[in-house]
Amino acid sequence: MVRMAGGKPVFISLRSKPVNGKKWSSSDWTLDPEELASKFNSKTKAIILNTPHNPIGKVYTKEELQVIADLCIQYDTLCISDEVYEWLVYTGNKHLKIATFPGMWERTITIGSAGKTFSVTGWKLGWSIGPYHLIKHLQTVQQNTVYTCATPLQEALARAFWIDIKRMDDPECYFNSLPKELEVKRDRMVHLLESVGLKSIVPDGGYFIIADVSFLDADLSDMKNSNEPYDYKFVKWMVKNKKLSAIPVSAFCNTETKLQFEKFVRFCFIKKDSTLDAAEEIIKAWNT
Amino acid sequence: MVRMAGGKPVFISLRSKPVNGKKWSSSDWTLDPEELASKFNSKTKAIILNTPHNPIGKVYTKEELQVIADLCIQYDTLCISDEVYEWLVYTGNKHLKIATFPGMWERTITIGSAGKTFSVTGWKLGWSIGPYHLIKHLQTVQQNTVYTCATPLQEALARAFWIDIKRMDDPECYFNSLPKELEVKRDRMVHLLESVGLKSIVPDGGYFIIADVSFLDADLSDMKNSNEPYDYKFVKWMVKNKKLSAIPVSAFCNTETKLQFEKFVRFCFIKKDSTLDAAEEIIKAWNT
Repeated sequence: MVRMAGGKPVFISLRSKPVNGKKWSSSDWTLDPEELASKFNSKTKAIILNTPHNPIGKVYTKEELQVIADLCIQYDTLCISDEVYEWLVYTGNKHLKIATFPGMWERTITIGSAGKTFSVTGWKLGWSIGPYHLIKHLQTVQQNTVYTCATPLQEALARAFWIDIKRMDDPECYFNSLPKELEVKRDRMVHLLESVGLKSIVPDGGYFIIADVSFLDADLSDMKNSNEPYDYKFVKWMVKNKKLSAIPVSAFCNTETKLQFEKFVRFCFIKKDSTLDAAEEIIKAWNT
Repeated sequence: MVRMAGGKPVFISLRSKPVNGKKWSSSDWTLDPEELASKFNSKTKAIILNTPHNPIGKVYTKEELQVIADLCIQYDTLCISDEVYEWLVYTGNKHLKIATFPGMWERTITIGSAGKTFSVTGWKLGWSIGPYHLIKHLQTVQQNTVYTCATPLQEALARAFWIDIKRMDDPECYFNSLPKELEVKRDRMVHLLESVGLKSIVPDGGYFIIADVSFLDADLSDMKNSNEPYDYKFVKWMVKNKKLSAIPVSAFCNTETKLQFEKFVRFCFIKKDSTLDAAEEIIKAWNT
């Protein structure tokens, strides 16, 4: 999309600190501040930020966001902040909006999602928050592409917000109850992956967990398209042979970083307990 | 859109026969077969057809569609047939699908609309019908642009079809009841426009009626943007001064035909009777 708009995408990877036998957490993954600064110059139009992060589940801290904000201000750069998992943050973490940092409101477009916020991913509704001088251009694009969103669903979304915003301190509020419910599922998934020896990254936010599947030592010799990355082949093989589905993590990577992640797949844990039960059975019986 | 795809759009106008005092009908508007043939050559990739036609309301006859079909076959041309008003056809007319003409199925994509079929224009659902070798390319575009449609609305649409397709002979079937209800509103609108001396084109299909508003002799001297077409200025003036809304017909035209239609505006008659009552009052009191 950046290239279609005549821009040049510049990539930077999150990199993990060594964990030395401790639990591997999404917070171990960070941007190197010097490397990040080296990517900025006077031509840098915008940075795309994603917190909580898909697929790693990282929730950027205040200090990390400040580094990004400082660079945006120094280089007069826009920030497109994808915060669609903003309500899905687990104990000990706090989602922060970079648009609330001093000097950032006027240069930030914050993106939210009804599908992610209220667990209705088929609804195709979302929102962008920003100052008028930025949003007016999004309105032009909206008018000429999407044109309109499904009105009955917009009404339902408005009512959902209306109900939950008035009870933000109530545990029944969906913004509180959903992450609480999901944290149990996350912990269950972490435990399950560990119990079969799979290295996984415990996410601080979102509803995905990524795991290194090389330990499972799947025999992929039957798979066609042998020049596909390992994770693509593994996932196709697993769907077919184990009836368990996941997403190859290298699908999220550019060509330079694909190799680094091709032993990882992304599992989704926003599932009914009966579905997680079935996944557990499949994983535990893997080598039998 | 054609230009963005690297194509060259070639336009042809519907032209009216002289009506000599008879009622002016959308069926008086026709494509000249020779002129149409002159637009085709070996580079002609596709023709965009729209029947029933928006904004004129023309329902193409079998003979007219045969002329188009013959040219498509002779020049190996695709036909993109916009038939979103397919169920909104009035007494004495019959909607025909050009895809059912011999030799046309394999070269036609027929487009339908839930919004138009079931009067839910905010829903943003529709469908394309065609052979696999054409539809597979639309699936690629769908996957990479729209991605998915709102699933609860798709379910509702499927149920609506399920109900009405089983009672096609029943006057209660929406495909029968809606055009019957709208025909009364159309006739009322025709009568109203005539009663104040406005030349209008009686539509055979759709839910719009276009009328020549020059007779109303509106004083548009206060309108800014004096280089806008007459109909744009007229409509803005009418919304502001008469609280009645319409669409400028030249918005549907390319630059060469804009002038021909700039005295026409498009009224919509799929409205509650109380709304039509209010429109009637406004129009009848026009010069008082």
